[in-house]
Amino acid sequence: MASARILVRGPGDGRGRNMVPYQRVSVCGIHVTGVPFDELVRSAEMLVDALNLRRCYMDISHQSFPPGLAYYLDHHEAPPRGPNRQGLVDYGGAVVKFDNPWTCFIPADCKYHYRWEKGVVQIYRSEADMNVHNPLPYRNISFVKYVEDLCRLSDMIADGPLKSFCYRRLSYLSSKFKMHVLLNELHELALQKAVPHRDFYNIRKVDTHIHAASSMNQKHLLRFIKRTMRTCADEVVAVQRGVPKTLKSVFEEMNLDAYDLNVDLLDVHADRNTFHRFDKFNAKYNPVGESRLREVFLKTDNYMNGTYFARIIKEVINDLEENKYTYSEPRISIYCKSKSEWSKLASWALRNDVHSAHVRWLVQVPRLYDIYRISKLLNNFQEFINNLFDPLFQVSIDPHSNVELHKFLTHVIGFDSVDDESKPENPILSENMRSPEEWDDEENPPYAYYLYYMYANMVTLNQLRKERGMNTFVLRPHCGEAGPASHLSAAFLLSENISHGLVLRKVPVLQYAYYLAQIYIAMSPLSNNSLFLRYHRNPLPEYFEKGLNVTLSTDDPLQFHYTKEALMEEYSVAAQAWKLSTCDMCELARNSVIMSGFPHEMKQHWLGSQYQRDGPEGNDITRTNIPDLRLAYRHETLIDELDNLFKVHMT
Amino acid sequence: MASARILVRGPGDGRGRNMVPYQRVSVCGIHVTGVPFDELVRSAEMLVDALNLRRCYMDISHQSFPPGLAYYLDHHEAPPRGPNRQGLVDYGGAVVKFDNPWTCFIPADCKYHYRWEKGVVQIYRSEADMNVHNPLPYRNISFVKYVEDLCRLSDMIADGPLKSFCYRRLSYLSSKFKMHVLLNELHELALQKAVPHRDFYNIRKVDTHIHAASSMNQKHLLRFIKRTMRTCADEVVAVQRGVPKTLKSVFEEMNLDAYDLNVDLLDVHADRNTFHRFDKFNAKYNPVGESRLREVFLKTDNYMNGTYFARIIKEVINDLEENKYTYSEPRISIYCKSKSEWSKLASWALRNDVHSAHVRWLVQVPRLYDIYRISKLLNNFQEFINNLFDPLFQVSIDPHSNVELHKFLTHVIGFDSVDDESKPENPILSENMRSPEEWDDEENPPYAYYLYYMYANMVTLNQLRKERGMNTFVLRPHCGEAGPASHLSAAFLLSENISHGLVLRKVPVLQYAYYLAQIYIAMSPLSNNSLFLRYHRNPLPEYFEKGLNVTLSTDDPLQFHYTKEALMEEYSVAAQAWKLSTCDMCELARNSVIMSGFPHEMKQHWLGSQYQRDGPEGNDITRTNIPDLRLAYRHETLIDELDNLFKVHMT
Repeated sequence: MASARILVRGPGDGRGRNMVPYQRVSVCGIHVTGVPFDELVRSAEMLVDALNLRRCYMDISHQSFPPGLAYYLDHHEAPPRGPNRQGLVDYGGAVVKFDNPWTCFIPADCKYHYRWEKGVVQIYRSEADMNVHNPLPYRNISFVKYVEDLCRLSDMIADGPLKSFCYRRLSYLSSKFKMHVLLNELHELALQKAVPHRDFYNIRKVDTHIHAASSMNQKHLLRFIKRTMRTCADEVVAVQRGVPKTLKSVFEEMNLDAYDLNVDLLDVHADRNTFHRFDKFNAKYNPVGESRLREVFLKTDNYMNGTYFARIIKEVINDLEENKYTYSEPRISIYCKSKSEWSKLASWALRNDVHSAHVRWLVQVPRLYDIYRISKLLNNFQEFINNLFDPLFQVSIDPHSNVELHKFLTHVIGFDSVDDESKPENPILSENMRSPEEWDDEENPPYAYYLYYMYANMVTLNQLRKERGMNTFVLRPHCGEAGPASHLSAAFLLSENISHGLVLRKVPVLQYAYYLAQIYIAMSPLSNNSLFLRYHRNPLPEYFEKGLNVTLSTDDPLQFHYTKEALMEEYSVAAQAWKLSTCDMCELARNSVIMSGFPHEMKQHWLGSQYQRDGPEGNDITRTNIPDLRLAYRHETLIDELDNLFKVHMT
Repeated sequence: MASARILVRGPGDGRGRNMVPYQRVSVCGIHVTGVPFDELVRSAEMLVDALNLRRCYMDISHQSFPPGLAYYLDHHEAPPRGPNRQGLVDYGGAVVKFDNPWTCFIPADCKYHYRWEKGVVQIYRSEADMNVHNPLPYRNISFVKYVEDLCRLSDMIADGPLKSFCYRRLSYLSSKFKMHVLLNELHELALQKAVPHRDFYNIRKVDTHIHAASSMNQKHLLRFIKRTMRTCADEVVAVQRGVPKTLKSVFEEMNLDAYDLNVDLLDVHADRNTFHRFDKFNAKYNPVGESRLREVFLKTDNYMNGTYFARIIKEVINDLEENKYTYSEPRISIYCKSKSEWSKLASWALRNDVHSAHVRWLVQVPRLYDIYRISKLLNNFQEFINNLFDPLFQVSIDPHSNVELHKFLTHVIGFDSVDDESKPENPILSENMRSPEEWDDEENPPYAYYLYYMYANMVTLNQLRKERGMNTFVLRPHCGEAGPASHLSAAFLLSENISHGLVLRKVPVLQYAYYLAQIYIAMSPLSNNSLFLRYHRNPLPEYFEKGLNVTLSTDDPLQFHYTKEALMEEYSVAAQAWKLSTCDMCELARNSVIMSGFPHEMKQHWLGSQYQRDGPEGNDITRTNIPDLRLAYRHETLIDELDNLFKVHMT
């Protein structure tokens, strides 16, 4: 094996790149990956295999996949440069008009029929077609194939030489970034200074992971409760055994006086007792430790149809709008206990006019089948899925059947799967597992099982909606916050992007695959610090160095943050703890915009019209405040990594 | 030596304490300090000696000293409990009327005379007295005695057995606090919840260390500059070689357009390049790297008499007042280049009506004699001191000679000494050092020399002002941010409290002495993180555990903070990084109020009427949100430590 040499070069490295001038670090020699050639070939094969898998899952679900990488997979070489650029990835979500957010085109009933088969919907053009089992030619991935693919990933994760290869490459990427910064930092800063008007405060940032019910901070919730008690004490907020309860009487029953209430008593903030205690943390959603106040103030579906919740959410939204540069993708719950949940949610949003150009919704589905089964709300897991998807298929086939839901869905960009990932489960799926309708005992299905049935039905739903000109959805689950590595394999196949990803630090193969596939990861280090991983051990800075597409998000300002500017507080702590440069911070912010489900046109406005293109061509420093050279570094580095793999893969 | 045993006891430990019930950790046995008896005796002697020194320095300067400790020093035992409490320490600064902040009693000219003798003022009842060298019987400490005392402290610091003793006691205090928390944390929280209305958000916090010129955040300064450019472009802001310059022309000369200006270009934020580069950090005070903008916007003494600076400071003050619970003690500079600085400063404050019940000023004196000497502004160090103190003595003798200054001084609580402590200097003072008038070369005097002459003249000034019924001042220098340990010895003798104190972590003897004397330390870990010590290595949590009186302060929001709530951001990062409980945070906030120079009546209102009393008797949980048991723990622990020393010291 020839030895590799590290060169630092100025502009023009002779590889014909359209040069952004900066100090480049490159390695020359033969087989520059630092492993024996046969190991390189073997590793490349497996990684390309994994990337091909993901591409297939993304394609059929209408989720995004980097076009440059797709070109590599097809042609085993980098896409050609120049004006004839590749088909661009469509990251954007629903396009909505902003003058009246609830106005949208309402297509007619297409009269399709659908039927559940082994947990996945089949769609038919007509009842006749359904009777003869002649479904529409929508593509999907069978559970058996999925289990097979998971197994392949699982073998890769455990493969010794591949592990070493990926670990080496990741370490190399980390060192390379450090050298890049040493050589170019001051130049980057000078370029940023030269951009008129733009700075970190007035670039767009999206809070890509936040729960609506905890999107206000503790002081805000306290004030809201007190104010409501002052102004609405006599409103009936609940009915208990047929007896109407006013807000005042609810407080009286709890022996609470609104004036006396304080943040300590509210007790919603995470503290050192929540570390590795997800159960305790979940209980923090209950103000004063009482589900009654959560019910009254933080639910969309209660006796008052979530009026108070709508009010406080609108206050949160108002703060976002005033701030102008901060956007948010809050999660709102569908529990799948009943089919009416979707209608109620949509009707809550429309009746209370809860919307904003600053907000796009994700629907979070807690993995609580076992709880509902134990309390006999459901008979089997199929019913859980029915409650999630039936209303969506119905409204997508005939929007007039539920206009409110149809309208609300134009503001929804995808699905999130939530719960404590560290709960014990059998992480290994098998091909002959019970189907959802057979899953009728009190055992909770494993994470990867939940995720598959959300994915497979979303695939069909997205194809149907695409065909009908409606917006499609993405899967952005909580994944790798804790628990086994297999969760990250499942998400690698099924989801466009993820929240957390902490566990990737222990799984070099997946970490490298997430890097190659440029999967976005919304990280919340302050949340992790209270729950799973101390701040100074958080892998975010390391991921960022290596070039994984990470963003900063707050998760739960109610539980974690102190100031009125939760997202800025999150950036502040990260910047101080990890000594991020302003260029780093702007890159994190840009990542958050690209990851988000805001409409394509808004992203163009925020990042530049060409934002979907790779490298510096996709950058507009006057909007992003990121020097071209940073994106050139990122892009060239990725191309080098892919070249390493695809060159030998071809041979 | 009998072995010591650790006991955990419930209420009533048989020592006759007026019991606050909680789980107490105590050690029983003989000679419970863990060192051989003779070492204990020797250590106790030295520590008591050090405490006696400090007491003497504090007494004659009218700075505070804990009355409980004074009783120990007099009687070798704990002060008796009960209603006949000891003379209480007067922490408070100037008492001013709030209806009209500039109204105050203006005493007549007392016709005293004064003269400088070896760098320290002597005051005489009349000219005749002066001629016969018959000064007023004010007490003071000679430079020779000071150098002697410093040497004694310096010997103690280096004393092996004493070092071990102090290190052991500090480790014990740290472990004891950890046990206290394990046993009482939930009880503390329950007690806090039970306090109606009160929580961390609505207890008073004082930002005990902040520089006026950097008290706004970078975005605020940017907006202010842009707004001023929009509205006041044609105002003359400077005169350059006789030519008046408008704001517009200043911008034009710098090739700046106000709209184009951004935070990056402003370049006032600390970044990773300021670490261990105090010089670079100091340059960050210059917006856009230009002293011109600093001159126009951030100085009290410029062509426009600091109009713009007054305006932005009033905006900062306004934010404080709106927040209601946050107070601030900003530093404002007297450079000592000329005698007119005090008049100009006072006139700036009065003309622009810069004042607030939320603000008390400290005057900071940069240690820049060498710079002025090199540029021939001064001939010797005596002139530096003259410029600092002459106006103060003149106005204290005859307030009518400068009514503005007299009024302004009612809002000033003390002096700060500032600059890079890590600059090379000879840290050892000698008795036969040159006096200030002999100090006429370009060498900068060492830290401890500066501090002595500030102290010694403040001693005389305070005695004069006390006699005349005027407010007195304290010394609160930057100390132990970096540099040699001897700075901390100097401040141990001379100053009521200090800022930073990072170096105490390396000097167990002084750390323990600071604990015993309960000296308040304003710490700014975010500032340290950018300049001298990474956040996770900051000793604040450790000091806090041991019972040193630490507070959280921001130092320079312009350079370090991101949100609009800089002090809350500082608390937030500390709470998250170090997992502080809400009780810990409330204790830090209470410390900041006690440390501050706000008037006694305000402190009573904020903390409870008995706040000066030791232990739980001085606490009012309905105002401080701190359970009595926490203060009982602190007080009993301190008493135990003092008992250890004074019991053997007596024998």
